Amino acid sequence: MRYRKIPDETVRRLPIYLRGLLFSSEEGQQSISSRGLAELLGVNAWQIRKDFSYFGDFGTRGVGYDIKELISQINKILKLDTVHKAALVGVGSLGSAVLSHQSFRAYGFDITAAYDVSPKKIGKKINNITIKDVSKLRMLKKKKIDIGIITVPRDAAQQTADALIKTGVKGILNFSPCYITVPKRIKVITIDIAMDLARLPYYMSAG
Amino acid sequence: MRYRKIPDETVRRLPIYLRGLLFSSEEGQQSISSRGLAELLGVNAWQIRKDFSYFGDFGTRGVGYDIKELISQINKILKLDTVHKAALVGVGSLGSAVLSHQSFRAYGFDITAAYDVSPKKIGKKINNITIKDVSKLRMLKKKKIDIGIITVPRDAAQQTADALIKTGVKGILNFSPCYITVPKRIKVITIDIAMDLARLPYYMSAG
Repeated sequence: MRYRKIPDETVRRLPIYLRGLLFSSEEGQQSISSRGLAELLGVNAWQIRKDFSYFGDFGTRGVGYDIKELISQINKILKLDTVHKAALVGVGSLGSAVLSHQSFRAYGFDITAAYDVSPKKIGKKINNITIKDVSKLRMLKKKKIDIGIITVPRDAAQQTADALIKTGVKGILNFSPCYITVPKRIKVITIDIAMDLARLPYYMSAG
Repeated sequence: MRYRKIPDETVRRLPIYLRGLLFSSEEGQQSISSRGLAELLGVNAWQIRKDFSYFGDFGTRGVGYDIKELISQINKILKLDTVHKAALVGVGSLGSAVLSHQSFRAYGFDITAAYDVSPKKIGKKINNITIKDVSKLRMLKKKKIDIGIITVPRDAAQQTADALIKTGVKGILNFSPCYITVPKRIKVITIDIAMDLARLPYYMSAG
């Protein structure tokens, strides 16, 4: 319950920290200082300490944070400690990239189904997931899918969202270059892979 | 000069606002209220007003912000008002998605070159860009490329970064699932397309 008090900006940064911690853990590290993590991620160490202070004190002076402990805490806060099933619609180049991306599983996401309209793609496999006909999307209802991932062209985004919501998804990750309208109970995160690049020139010129 | 005072968190949010404004402009809108923009983007209206207050007052009570004016101001602040040339290395599914993504141009980025190691890909065209042999990367020096985009597998990320830096890039957008080490003068933004999804379950369960 006390997790509810964590500011939105901290919640937004937790996946960034989580990513750095997962990487450090894979590299064999057992503990990390706020400064070490800050350097790895290119963020401020004081910001990390402040953010971590919202959910407890895991650091040991001179030793740093226990990486496994911290990963487990962040996973718990972000509700990533249970597997979330996801379905993807639109297997173009971005959809293929998402399907073959290894990180989703590291965050506890299991993409179990993929759909497309193109007969050329239906029946093919990417990362062991067989691409199905999008007209069969409503069959998904039985599979208790939590999350829908939209990687269709802009014109098809809204109808894809509507169809996914009918199957019972509670959250949508929208990669299409437009905003979709959904009922209030549905959470949407819209992603533009170009958007992060838009921050770069500002920092490049800051020298 | 006064732009230097804009907090990092505001700078991080400016591309999000910019994206919403570009979308509204494409849809034919001329002005937008902070509430309208907030609803479109799923953020807080007060946050928008606070962020915009750092760089001037463009809003007219009852009318809202002039969209074109606001886009131009944000572009200026983010140094997106000049075209930045970019080169991409690694034309797998993610690299292809980046090459065919329309948004980059909207933000003032011109991806003018693409490289890969695979003989199967070299010579092919995506979005009018001919894929070249990565061994020719150093020829890029003459082309005054500002930004390198890395979409290679993890193992090749660091050497790709090193090669790009030698050609004179000042900023790197790294999509590879690892962190790269660069000289201090080089700015790096590391992107994980799965990371944003990691925020979704938190908000789904809060709902």
